[in-house]
Amino acid sequence: MIAGWGPTNREGLELTNGGVTAVPGFRAAGCVSGVKASGRPDLALVCSDRRAAVAVTTTTNHVKAPACVVTEAHAADGAAQAVVINAGNANVCTPSGSEHALRLAAAASREASISAEDVLVMSTGVIGVPLPIERIEEAMPSVAADVADDGGLRAAHAMMTTDTRPKLSAYRVTQPDGSTYVIGGMAKGVGMIEPSMATMLAVITCDAAVDPALLRTAVRGAVAHSFNRISVDGDQSTSDTVVVFANGAAGVAAESATLMRALHAVCADLALQIVADGEGASRVAAVTVRGAVDESTAERLARSVATSLLVRAAMHGADPNWGRILMALGNAGVEFDLSAVAVRCAGVEVCRGGVARDFDRSAAAAAMAASEVSIDVEVGMGPGSATVLTCDLTPEYVRFNAEYTT
Amino acid sequence: MIAGWGPTNREGLELTNGGVTAVPGFRAAGCVSGVKASGRPDLALVCSDRRAAVAVTTTTNHVKAPACVVTEAHAADGAAQAVVINAGNANVCTPSGSEHALRLAAAASREASISAEDVLVMSTGVIGVPLPIERIEEAMPSVAADVADDGGLRAAHAMMTTDTRPKLSAYRVTQPDGSTYVIGGMAKGVGMIEPSMATMLAVITCDAAVDPALLRTAVRGAVAHSFNRISVDGDQSTSDTVVVFANGAAGVAAESATLMRALHAVCADLALQIVADGEGASRVAAVTVRGAVDESTAERLARSVATSLLVRAAMHGADPNWGRILMALGNAGVEFDLSAVAVRCAGVEVCRGGVARDFDRSAAAAAMAASEVSIDVEVGMGPGSATVLTCDLTPEYVRFNAEYTT
Repeated sequence: MIAGWGPTNREGLELTNGGVTAVPGFRAAGCVSGVKASGRPDLALVCSDRRAAVAVTTTTNHVKAPACVVTEAHAADGAAQAVVINAGNANVCTPSGSEHALRLAAAASREASISAEDVLVMSTGVIGVPLPIERIEEAMPSVAADVADDGGLRAAHAMMTTDTRPKLSAYRVTQPDGSTYVIGGMAKGVGMIEPSMATMLAVITCDAAVDPALLRTAVRGAVAHSFNRISVDGDQSTSDTVVVFANGAAGVAAESATLMRALHAVCADLALQIVADGEGASRVAAVTVRGAVDESTAERLARSVATSLLVRAAMHGADPNWGRILMALGNAGVEFDLSAVAVRCAGVEVCRGGVARDFDRSAAAAAMAASEVSIDVEVGMGPGSATVLTCDLTPEYVRFNAEYTT
Repeated sequence: MIAGWGPTNREGLELTNGGVTAVPGFRAAGCVSGVKASGRPDLALVCSDRRAAVAVTTTTNHVKAPACVVTEAHAADGAAQAVVINAGNANVCTPSGSEHALRLAAAASREASISAEDVLVMSTGVIGVPLPIERIEEAMPSVAADVADDGGLRAAHAMMTTDTRPKLSAYRVTQPDGSTYVIGGMAKGVGMIEPSMATMLAVITCDAAVDPALLRTAVRGAVAHSFNRISVDGDQSTSDTVVVFANGAAGVAAESATLMRALHAVCADLALQIVADGEGASRVAAVTVRGAVDESTAERLARSVATSLLVRAAMHGADPNWGRILMALGNAGVEFDLSAVAVRCAGVEVCRGGVARDFDRSAAAAAMAASEVSIDVEVGMGPGSATVLTCDLTPEYVRFNAEYTT
């Protein structure tokens, strides 16, 4: 549990086990199609037993994967019923990308007996290599036959690329009127740091009935405070996608404030798991800025610290190097009063009034050698606060990304 | 010689030896004051034999060194006569920073018999540790007595922090009317990658007579196309400063177009030396974008590629990983037509029309193993082009910056 991460108000949220199939009315499967040379699972399918309200966010990278384009089109009416995910090939920057993305949806549509316009698609893996769509089409009958209400973990495995572990989160949600529903999700991504892998994907399911417009609003808010506040290397992939299904199987209408909390909690859990699994990462750093004029200013300041290579290298060395933190704050393009700045590293105040505090360096370094480390910055100007998560920059990260050959 | 770097028109420019004292009327010295624990030279002084026109650019980091503030104030009238530089301590984020910066100027003023308002100051080194100003004051008489017309190299050594070598550039300039003058410079900085070091400094001297307003304009242009187009880690320091003196000792008035070329050439040379000396760097990458709608768009695209950790790690692995280059272009926040994009790595076309070319990977990898590598991107939209230099990201960079302890 990282302070400042996820909803502070967790009323009505009870953590439970599982991912997308923790939610009644959703079935999933994962299988081997042969796209990955390793022979590991690489094709996942998640189906709702009925059409569901859906909301989607995709990458803002100008080079956008055909899968993102198809998913946005198929979700444009606010409803969908399934998502098919292939790993090992991003289907980006290839001549037949759009055709292959549509064939991916069509194959799932045929085998799952769902309208193609209600099938969303995700592709993750290497860029620039044509997708061997025939292998996926051949494997689709078996994955469609295999979908089950305990298949969420298998699906989470099949969407992995260089992830070392699947990423799951689920909550049982109790609304103010006592009614309950379940929300669950899975994600893949080891930060945005995979070699030519394109990259962060998340699927979230919910059995409450949710108006599509409310779902879109809630997703936007939850993503803005979770997936959009993590950074591994500042590189946004061409395929980043989050989809949320709400199928109403619980016979309960979602109350908006509770839904927003629940969605925020699931997204925050999954985003933390992504950072923690960052390639080469040895620890997670939570950079929290308080006292900014507003939240967006706090976010800019926190992001500038969290994306600084020098700060991230210092985190690796468990070094309370506050000079680098002030340098990064100064580069955020935001006005602040240096003489009001205080910095704590892992709870140890290292800077106050913009100048050094006399602190115990070895105690601070020991505290910073933990697997989760906080950097707290107070700028003393107003009520705005924000937390951005990152991981430390390690020689292993560089080696991995230098030695990988396309 | 890197294509696209420095002025393409080199008419009237003849490379010569030396740095700031290649220029008549300028003397310099470097000595040991004891600020650096290593006992290496750490105090430099450059004096003109008369008041000179001066132009200054300093960091845009909101946390600005007191030295930058004093230098800007003393150069505000467009004239100055000396610059004193201490290395080993940036005099930033300390309680007495402003007072110490003024005492630095005052000490040089006393010993060199120059008005304090005509002395500029630069400080580079650790952040947050009070400057031992007394040591500098004690050493000032000897450095002032030592200034000589062959002291440029000693001064360049004394401004170094973790630089592995001094950085010099000088040109003999012939104007269209046949008159000549000399321009020379020195710089320090190993990219912006020094541990808590604050960081890039350059001093440029010229013996032409230059109107201060022209000098300011010329410096702005030269810096924009040189120091502001290099990136090692995207972290801008709190002390970055470039000062240019033009003392008129040659008895020649500078013609503006030739001056701009000459200043651009010196700045480009020094900036290249900074990137090449980048901590842990094994090669320089010149990212050139052509065919953008205008130059600033080309610069944004080139900068996005040059600052991508994934691209820089791939450069270290001599990997023609064009998928990462397209990802980085897509993150620049600029519109372009993906189907018009072509990419060459070290002269080998690896992508055309936004999709993979069939190329010889081992030949491309061999070409990319050079000490200077070009990445050429064509976006096919207009006449805008720009080159941004970076160096490869190496495990040594991370180790150095993680293991350093403040």
